[in-house]
Amino acid sequence: MTATGLRVRFDKALQEFLRGAMPALAGIADDLGPLAEATEAFVLDGGKRLRPLFCYWGYRATGAGDDERIVAAAASLELLQACALVHDDVIDGSDTRRGAPSVHRRFAALHRSAGWHGDPERFGQAAAILLGDLALIWADAMLSGSGFTAVELERALPIWDTMRVEVMCGQYLDVVEQARGGGSVERALRVARFKSAKYTIERPLHLGAALGAGPPELSTAFSAYGLPLGEAFQLRDDVLGVYGDPDVTGKPAGDDLREGKRTVLVAYALEAANDAQTEQLRRHLGDPQLAEDGITVLREIIAATGALDRVEELISVRAAAAGRALDDVVMDAEARSALLQLAEAASRRLV
Amino acid sequence: MTATGLRVRFDKALQEFLRGAMPALAGIADDLGPLAEATEAFVLDGGKRLRPLFCYWGYRATGAGDDERIVAAAASLELLQACALVHDDVIDGSDTRRGAPSVHRRFAALHRSAGWHGDPERFGQAAAILLGDLALIWADAMLSGSGFTAVELERALPIWDTMRVEVMCGQYLDVVEQARGGGSVERALRVARFKSAKYTIERPLHLGAALGAGPPELSTAFSAYGLPLGEAFQLRDDVLGVYGDPDVTGKPAGDDLREGKRTVLVAYALEAANDAQTEQLRRHLGDPQLAEDGITVLREIIAATGALDRVEELISVRAAAAGRALDDVVMDAEARSALLQLAEAASRRLV
Repeated sequence: MTATGLRVRFDKALQEFLRGAMPALAGIADDLGPLAEATEAFVLDGGKRLRPLFCYWGYRATGAGDDERIVAAAASLELLQACALVHDDVIDGSDTRRGAPSVHRRFAALHRSAGWHGDPERFGQAAAILLGDLALIWADAMLSGSGFTAVELERALPIWDTMRVEVMCGQYLDVVEQARGGGSVERALRVARFKSAKYTIERPLHLGAALGAGPPELSTAFSAYGLPLGEAFQLRDDVLGVYGDPDVTGKPAGDDLREGKRTVLVAYALEAANDAQTEQLRRHLGDPQLAEDGITVLREIIAATGALDRVEELISVRAAAAGRALDDVVMDAEARSALLQLAEAASRRLV
Repeated sequence: MTATGLRVRFDKALQEFLRGAMPALAGIADDLGPLAEATEAFVLDGGKRLRPLFCYWGYRATGAGDDERIVAAAASLELLQACALVHDDVIDGSDTRRGAPSVHRRFAALHRSAGWHGDPERFGQAAAILLGDLALIWADAMLSGSGFTAVELERALPIWDTMRVEVMCGQYLDVVEQARGGGSVERALRVARFKSAKYTIERPLHLGAALGAGPPELSTAFSAYGLPLGEAFQLRDDVLGVYGDPDVTGKPAGDDLREGKRTVLVAYALEAANDAQTEQLRRHLGDPQLAEDGITVLREIIAATGALDRVEELISVRAAAAGRALDDVVMDAEARSALLQLAEAASRRLV
């Protein structure tokens, strides 16, 4: 099963689930149409399906065979992710997501084109908050309707709950860190761990392993693999947020700088900067009007402090640790090979 | 089992659940303290526990005995309600809830007192969105950890999912109706049905009945009882939002008028108003600065159009229908008597 083949099956499962969920909305009121359409467009349009891939291979690693139940259960993670992203965009006031208008912008535009009363931006935010809530609820419904028995699901539910709590807590810690102005490598790493490493890799693997009734050693190995890999993945994301090519990332150049994201990269830069560099960093980070020349200045400073090299080093160390973590545990050979490929791709950010 | 006695038990179950959930947060980071405290304060401070009461008696109506499992399962509805209210306050920009600062105001104050960077209001919103998400997730975890078996829970899950989808859709329809400027009695009644009647009464009863493995006739009777009662309850709420005593409602006088809520009461008034009255209604409804004299003018117009009488009539008809709906169905005698008392209290809004 290739990643591409699996992505097609995840999309099909999501499409089927949403088609099944939509008549209930239509039965309530026609006015819910835009909510249904925006959810479907958001969930089915793009996304690397990383979380479903890890969940799927976590399940297959136990020796359980391929079937449509695990495809649906794994794909439900994309609905949870839709909630996290849609709410995150409201929180950050982000205008775009995957190169398209973010959900709250989309609903603000609907408000304007309908000529409704009140503030279009507030309407957009309201709709996006509620759409995110719906996606969180649908994630649950898709998992519980995936075809696994109540007893199989019961094994997975504590992990499902823990994962969801962790991602929301990670988001909150991220918001607090931005408000604090950053500067702590330790705190920035903790955000990366909870917001990304556990949520994107470790917990989806655990979820799959629990559905497949894998032994405790397997989950332990998955932590040893997933946590460093997930941190490497987030650190790569941080680097791309500053130095990435907009054509590849789908986000405007230097977007994280304009947003003022307090990443590990920024924390290292603030830690090692001299007074003049600190002054420049503090002045420009989070300036929504930051132009191309300001972005260039910040990029140069972050590299000059050695922060970029240090983060690249962290990524290498973590990717290597992840690559070794599965060596000594018994698992299905196809799953092992798929997970090693995913590790390679995730740390290079090719997936 | 009196309503007061049950409320004490619901609170105890919520407290125990939250105490069990908090160490996981503390294990992530001390910074999560305010999130945990605000959730606990919000959930344990007040609230009429209507949804848990209906869920509990829906279960007991099946003949199932009293136990701590149903108390915990029923109380989990308060965490779902916390999500709905906290997100609703962000959407409406409400400053207070149950006489205390709303969650987003509370976190804006935290931001100010910590002297953090950025806009305190945006930080408050972000924290409230995430706290609402957490409450939605915890509601699930509390239900699935209530002590019912996986098979018993499986019976209840489709209702749980439907109920959660309905309340979010009802909220969205409400937001759309405000944006549209109201004026449709039919649409306002639909909002009352989905946002309140199903969510507050019908579905909690169905949830309890499903946990207790009640027969289909019981759920049918619960719909015949719950929908009119829930609508009566919401219509009473609408009347109190305009004419209510702040000491009783816990909200500033005329708050719904200042917010510009497009209720059934307002829809009737707009429908029957003459040109001069329409002009006054359109000018003042939704004016955040609306002073005492403006409130008095609106109150008089709404009564003069006959809208108040019509809504009172709707409430009476619905309360009477609810009172009769349980007559011909077999159920536990104590549950029947409790549900009739709840109907009486809910339509008078004494609970």
